[in-house]
This record gives sequence, C-alpha cells and structure tokens, in this order.
Amino acid sequence: MTYCVAIRLKAGLVFLSDSRTNAGVDHISTFRKMTVFEHTGERFMVVLSAGNLAITQAVIQRLSATRLATEPSVWNASNLFEAARVVGDAVRQIHKSDAETLNAFNLEFNANFLFGGQIRGEPPRLFHVYAAGNFIEATEESPYFQIGEAKYGKPILDRVITPETTLDEAAKCSLVSMDSTLRSNLSVGMPLDLLVYETDALRVSRFVTIDSTNEYYRMISTTWGRRLRQVFSEIPNPTWDASLTPGANVLHGGTPPRAPVPPEIAALPNSVPSGPIQTLAGTPPTK
Amino acid sequence: MTYCVAIRLKAGLVFLSDSRTNAGVDHISTFRKMTVFEHTGERFMVVLSAGNLAITQAVIQRLSATRLATEPSVWNASNLFEAARVVGDAVRQIHKSDAETLNAFNLEFNANFLFGGQIRGEPPRLFHVYAAGNFIEATEESPYFQIGEAKYGKPILDRVITPETTLDEAAKCSLVSMDSTLRSNLSVGMPLDLLVYETDALRVSRFVTIDSTNEYYRMISTTWGRRLRQVFSEIPNPTWDASLTPGANVLHGGTPPRAPVPPEIAALPNSVPSGPIQTLAGTPPTK
Repeated sequence: MTYCVAIRLKAGLVFLSDSRTNAGVDHISTFRKMTVFEHTGERFMVVLSAGNLAITQAVIQRLSATRLATEPSVWNASNLFEAARVVGDAVRQIHKSDAETLNAFNLEFNANFLFGGQIRGEPPRLFHVYAAGNFIEATEESPYFQIGEAKYGKPILDRVITPETTLDEAAKCSLVSMDSTLRSNLSVGMPLDLLVYETDALRVSRFVTIDSTNEYYRMISTTWGRRLRQVFSEIPNPTWDASLTPGANVLHGGTPPRAPVPPEIAALPNSVPSGPIQTLAGTPPTK
Repeated sequence: MTYCVAIRLKAGLVFLSDSRTNAGVDHISTFRKMTVFEHTGERFMVVLSAGNLAITQAVIQRLSATRLATEPSVWNASNLFEAARVVGDAVRQIHKSDAETLNAFNLEFNANFLFGGQIRGEPPRLFHVYAAGNFIEATEESPYFQIGEAKYGKPILDRVITPETTLDEAAKCSLVSMDSTLRSNLSVGMPLDLLVYETDALRVSRFVTIDSTNEYYRMISTTWGRRLRQVFSEIPNPTWDASLTPGANVLHGGTPPRAPVPPEIAALPNSVPSGPIQTLAGTPPTK
C-alpha cells in the first residue's frame, strides 16, 4: 500500500506522497511515488502513483520515453485534460502488455494515479487516473483526491480543505492527514515528498523531502496528538440521568435489544427480573 | 457496511453500534446490530454484528434458541471463553448450511462479531469472532475491537483509549469515532445503540439509543469539528526558507524526482533551465 494526496486550490496545487512499497510485511522497500514533468515557464505536471510497482514504473517510463514527433505526449498536449488522456493511454498500453500474465499469477492489475499541474493558458487542474485508463477531475466541491490507504487521513481533509485554503494550510493539512495514516498503517512509510505549486509559476514552487528527523513534521505529529487529546478531554462527558430534562449532555432513552432469557434460566433462584433501571441508570453528572 | 466498536477497560465495557444495513446504496434499511444476553446477577453478554444480515441474524437466532439440556449455550457456558466458542460454533453451523448456496450466487460468507461481557467469577472479557468461527481476545495492549467500516474512526481510539480510561470517556470516545465514520461513509447510519457495562454489575449499567435529535451527540459532533479546525489553525504553518537554520517550522531539503526533459522540448526558446530555487523557494515566514 501507499498513501498519496493531491489538493487543488485557487492558490495552486499541493502534492504529498509517501515512499513505502511492500510485497507483504516481510518485504518492504523505499520507492518514491512522485514524478515531476516540467518545461519551465510552459508546463508543469506531477504524477503520484499507487498500486503494483512494476505497473506504475512501466507507466512512468512510458510517459518519460515518449516519441514527440509521432505520439501524443504530456510534453506537447495542448491542455491538461489531453495530458491526462496521455497518462490514461499509457496505463492502457501497460494493461494490454501485462494484464494477462499478471492474471495467470492471480495478480490484479492494480494502479492508480493522481495527475495535476498547469499548462500555460489554463488554470491548474487535477485528475485521478484509474487502472482502466479513465479519469475524473477535481472540482470546487471535491478539491482533493487520495490514492492508496485513503481512509485514516480523510476526515481532516474533509473538515479543513476548501478551494480558498492557502497553500501553506493545505500543505500542513496534508501532513496531518499523512500523520494519521502513518500511525495506523505499517505499509505507509517515510520519507515523504511534499511539493507545493503556486498558480501560474509554471515550475516547482516549493519542495521538501521529509524524513523522521524533520523538525516541522515532528512538531506537527506531537502537537496534533497532544492537542487532539486535550480537545477531547474538554468535551463534556455524558450525563446519565433519566430524571433530568433532556439537554445538551444528557443521554437517555431506548432499550437494548435483548435475546429472550430461556425459561430454564429465568426459573433459576438467583435470576432477578430485568427492571427499567437496567436500561438507563442514573449516575451523578461527571462534569 | 456498518460500524461497531467495543472497548474493554478496567472499569468495564463499552459497546457502540450503528444500525444501517444496505444492499447497494439504493437499498438501505435500519437493523440494530446489538443483542444483549443477560441473566441478571449471573452473566451479562453483548453481541455486536457486521456483515451479511441474513448470516448475522441466523447466528443470533441460533444463539437465542439453543436447547440448554443438550447443547452448549452462552446461557450456561462456564466462562466467557467457552461462550465465545459457542458463538464461533454457531457461525460455523450457519456456514455449513449456507456458504455453498451463497457461493453459487458469488456472495462471500461475510460476518464478524464482537462478543463481550462478564460471567460471575471472572473479570469482563471481550472477543472478536471471525466468519470462520475462530476468535481473538482483547488485551491490555489492544483494549478495543472494531468491525465493519473501521478505518475512519480508528485514529481517535488509538490516541485516547487505554485500560485506565473511564467508562464515560470511553463512551465519549466511541461517539467521536462514530461521528468521523458517519461523516465519511454513507453506509453507516443512525440510530446508534450505546451500552455501558460496569465491572461486576452483571446487568446492563447504562444504555441509550441515539438518533439525530440527540443533543449530546449533536454537541459532540459540532464541538469536535469546530475545535479540530481550531487546533489545526493553531499549529504553525511551515516556513519555507533555505537560508534559515533548520528548526521547528522550517521545511527544506531534497529535490523532486523529475522525468528527463526531452531534447526537443529543452531546445525550445522559452525553456528556462531548472535552477535550485525551484526545489526550495524562500518565502517570508507565514506565522
């Protein structure tokens, strides 16, 4: 598994990828998932990849080694949609050559790509290219895409990211999202590649490779965890009391679904019939 | 999908389940996933279930309708490990009768159960029973189990829950965990069943069914989101500046992996060679 996230904002684009590849937990290696295609001042594109490494490397290789005179290429596509189609076609070519053999070994043709950037004359755009070579584009309502181990890091993105988010805030958010993922899934690992692109720069604006010694990342990681626990402890505990008027901190009502007590058991001397207090105990407020 | 979580603490047990069942997004129903087996003063057990509803209902039915005189039962098992084995055996019986037919329809035998409680003479125990009928027990190091859509709600559990957590804090934590899950996965839905069991009570201690009108849940949901965004905004943004000494908020170093620029492209007049500034731009500190 891996984890990559790409965010499209008014101010530009943010890309973050991990670098862990594994063939089972006993076979872990480091491969970077980010590739930059840049013709400075003309076009700037980034590919992030997840899935079977042999497939994703073959796709990147195909994109890099294109014959400009005879084939459509990311280097001369007239807009980013056309360039995304070139990426999709590259995936389909590899599918054509490899899928059958992979299938014979019961291996799925598993590959996903985030492809974003800007070609002069257009605003920045961001696409998610699937294993089938088809793709979708990020919009105002859905300004980010994730590939790989997406779930652990999704809630913070959903709460923070809008098209108006600044590049630095989005970079910070992607790192918090990555931190939650790194903690929960061993198959996602450092170093991280973080790339920030400013609209109309048409070149890499900011880039950093983050390993476990990076102080900013460590600060985020420890601060976020500590403050999260603090916020959690500041939320009032529930007050369990049937006699109170329903209000902000009062939990009450309902009965648990019970399996019927067999007659032999119900007839036993130390069986006490269930009373209403069992379903809703009154305890002193905890806060 | 569904989401259930059960937590084993020194102070007792906490169970939380949603009630959404779906056969595709266009066929959604409400079925509660919690069943209480209680012989007051003697034994208290809860089953939470996730997976194919026909399978899980059949298992619960089998557990409820047991013939005490002739078969091992959760009602007379001498300890909770034996009772978990009864649950596992019930799953295996249903597998025996249904798996082949399900397979003919390309349906997986998909069922997971959280089974916890206390039998007089033992401390409370908690088990995760798999579709194969085998099971694992929660420990001091791994004090909680989740079934169904587990990932969105896992990070907060990992950060908060220890065996020393109080019952109210654990109940609150399970609700925060559920809130993250409800937001991200449509196939998890209200109402929620929350049950709290105090060690040695040998009966339901506290129970509530939570729907969207529940004020405590709504308070948690809005407060958590708002405070999370606040904490996030309080974490300093990165400072991008190559000239600064590496420190807490400074991100720097590394170069992005680049695809080689084809010679035809590099030779174009408006192609500017990539300089080091591209890999690490200096911008004024944002905080």
